[in-house]
Amino acid sequence: MSITRPRGFRAVGLAAGIKSTGKDDLALIVNDGPRDTAAAVFTANRVQAAPVLWSREAIADGRALAVVLNSGGANACTGPEGFADTHRTAEHLAAELRISAQDVLVCSTGLIGQRLPMEPLLAGVTTAARQLSEGPEADSAAAGAIMTTDTVPKTAEVVTGSGVVVGGIAKGAGMLAPQLATMLVVLTTDADVDAETADAALRGATRTTFDRVDSDACMSTNDTVILLASGASGIAPELEELTEAVRAVSADLARQLVADAEGASHDVHVVVRSATTEDAALAVAREIARSSLVKAAIFGNDPNWGRIVSAAGCVPESVAPFDVADLSVTVNGIEVCRAGGAHRDRSEVDMTPRETLIEVDLGAGDASGDIWTNDLTHDYVEENSAYSS
Amino acid sequence: MSITRPRGFRAVGLAAGIKSTGKDDLALIVNDGPRDTAAAVFTANRVQAAPVLWSREAIADGRALAVVLNSGGANACTGPEGFADTHRTAEHLAAELRISAQDVLVCSTGLIGQRLPMEPLLAGVTTAARQLSEGPEADSAAAGAIMTTDTVPKTAEVVTGSGVVVGGIAKGAGMLAPQLATMLVVLTTDADVDAETADAALRGATRTTFDRVDSDACMSTNDTVILLASGASGIAPELEELTEAVRAVSADLARQLVADAEGASHDVHVVVRSATTEDAALAVAREIARSSLVKAAIFGNDPNWGRIVSAAGCVPESVAPFDVADLSVTVNGIEVCRAGGAHRDRSEVDMTPRETLIEVDLGAGDASGDIWTNDLTHDYVEENSAYSS
Repeated sequence: MSITRPRGFRAVGLAAGIKSTGKDDLALIVNDGPRDTAAAVFTANRVQAAPVLWSREAIADGRALAVVLNSGGANACTGPEGFADTHRTAEHLAAELRISAQDVLVCSTGLIGQRLPMEPLLAGVTTAARQLSEGPEADSAAAGAIMTTDTVPKTAEVVTGSGVVVGGIAKGAGMLAPQLATMLVVLTTDADVDAETADAALRGATRTTFDRVDSDACMSTNDTVILLASGASGIAPELEELTEAVRAVSADLARQLVADAEGASHDVHVVVRSATTEDAALAVAREIARSSLVKAAIFGNDPNWGRIVSAAGCVPESVAPFDVADLSVTVNGIEVCRAGGAHRDRSEVDMTPRETLIEVDLGAGDASGDIWTNDLTHDYVEENSAYSS
Repeated sequence: MSITRPRGFRAVGLAAGIKSTGKDDLALIVNDGPRDTAAAVFTANRVQAAPVLWSREAIADGRALAVVLNSGGANACTGPEGFADTHRTAEHLAAELRISAQDVLVCSTGLIGQRLPMEPLLAGVTTAARQLSEGPEADSAAAGAIMTTDTVPKTAEVVTGSGVVVGGIAKGAGMLAPQLATMLVVLTTDADVDAETADAALRGATRTTFDRVDSDACMSTNDTVILLASGASGIAPELEELTEAVRAVSADLARQLVADAEGASHDVHVVVRSATTEDAALAVAREIARSSLVKAAIFGNDPNWGRIVSAAGCVPESVAPFDVADLSVTVNGIEVCRAGGAHRDRSEVDMTPRETLIEVDLGAGDASGDIWTNDLTHDYVEENSAYSS
């Protein structure tokens, strides 16, 4: 189970006919209260899809009762007409649920630049609103309906010491970048918290989970992570407890996103230590994680530390102070580079596991940071040259 | 012809045995004067190969009489021993030519992190110094000896109105990035100019040529562009005339580098117009040129303007002010996006030519800038996963 495991939620997923393939493409998640607490974080891309523009407004008061998500079209770069489509969708669901449209959040994913087929979409919303339910089947259906090139639905849940439950679903399999990824995530909890607490917990959690995933450096127009809190448990956890639970579910989902990235054959964990600041560590980790040459080498099972060091050297000194002569690189436990030069032989490194661990020590301070990425493979090229998104 | 077409130069290329394949791997270029004017620009990567560290020092006085270049090993991340190897190479050639080692520049390219085989290299320098000559064969041999994954040697030359000749050779077929590329370039001219003029001409020329090539966003440890001026023509051109000639040769070589980029099937010219400043235009052009999703789409002959717009949106507003609603995108002459939304149908775009022209209008000002890149192909992944560099 996932999003309806916390008390106070119902969900549904079905095929509304938005996707030409006939696969499921519409999901609803409804918070039955007693609370209507909500928080969200959105893409930092300046090109923001209509549903992002709408949901930003709708969440501004820290309240939301329902989320409607569609795959089969991003509704991005669709102008005022696209925004009107999102507005209509929210109004339509609000009427079905007898709530305010201002309490409806909208998420879309798929191809940029095309209008959504509104007739089947709205008809689907009507049907969906009447099929809302709880339990594993509802959760799976909702998680499945938001998939695009994902190969598996992503769900997670956790129960805290005090009995608060947090559940979540996610989609995203490429264009996974900087802050957030091309990804839609809905998290639910039955914690009895206000909007301020929910917002703090969500931002605290995403900072070290979804924000650390950088599959291909491409930041999407639709990224959205939503947290809904029903208060149905009657338990009011401390911020720290809630943050940790949201972080655990987010970390689980983020790891699933990396594992399902388009065409990847390795999940790559880049850990940078001994940096002057966390930001410096993250800048170096991100530069390594984004290097096409590093990523292609990993696909070829080559622990090519020269490319790793070279990528680190592309980070400006002002961003990450360190001396190249102090740099060490360890790949899957073998220190192939020490003091900026060759150390143990690269043939000692076993690159066959799916998970590749790159550890870089800058020898400059006490801070560290990590980024998850994937290798650059033939299948990545194939999926992204053959599939329009 | 190329580097020995200007009066006052001799060159040679041969197989010294640095490459295990037995292919040519050592080149010399010698300036016989009367002038010893020289200028150079180097990689901005903080990880700088031993030959870069050496040549930076040697060129500081604006003088150089010889360049020795090897493929088969980058001599990067090789510590003090690697620097000593470069020093020995310069001393060795200087003794052969009876000049000062301070007038010898050194360039290396190949795998990072391995020492060079000094015995065959120095023996090769001795042989090479005795085989220096002028003419097409010497030029071709020098251009061929610096190739790594290049499939063709790159040469260019131009004669100015006043009779000054500029020639050049280049290597580089991947890791072509920001300022410069994994590339070695030697330009020669018989102009009668001082070091200050040569430096100004070289920097003026590289700024709009080699600095505008961004094949895969990976900046190498060895990038070097050298200009040697013999003064043998007795002609002292105006700075503007020399700059234009150096620019023309550099543009020709830069275009050849893009055309020979590892595994590419399209050469992509990204032109951004109506920006507030040239830097803003270049930032947007570079972000588009670096997007794996844009590059993979071009490989798939898909004029995916949504990915282009999305990449543009990743540039911070502070770097490039523009309104997404004013943005237009034209691919190979077809305006597929206008006012931030869909315009002409993408099926109208012919993506079959090797050269792809992406024109983006930001509607924000009068400045423009362009970047050359390549598509992301199966062959790129193959070459960079199978070949260690």
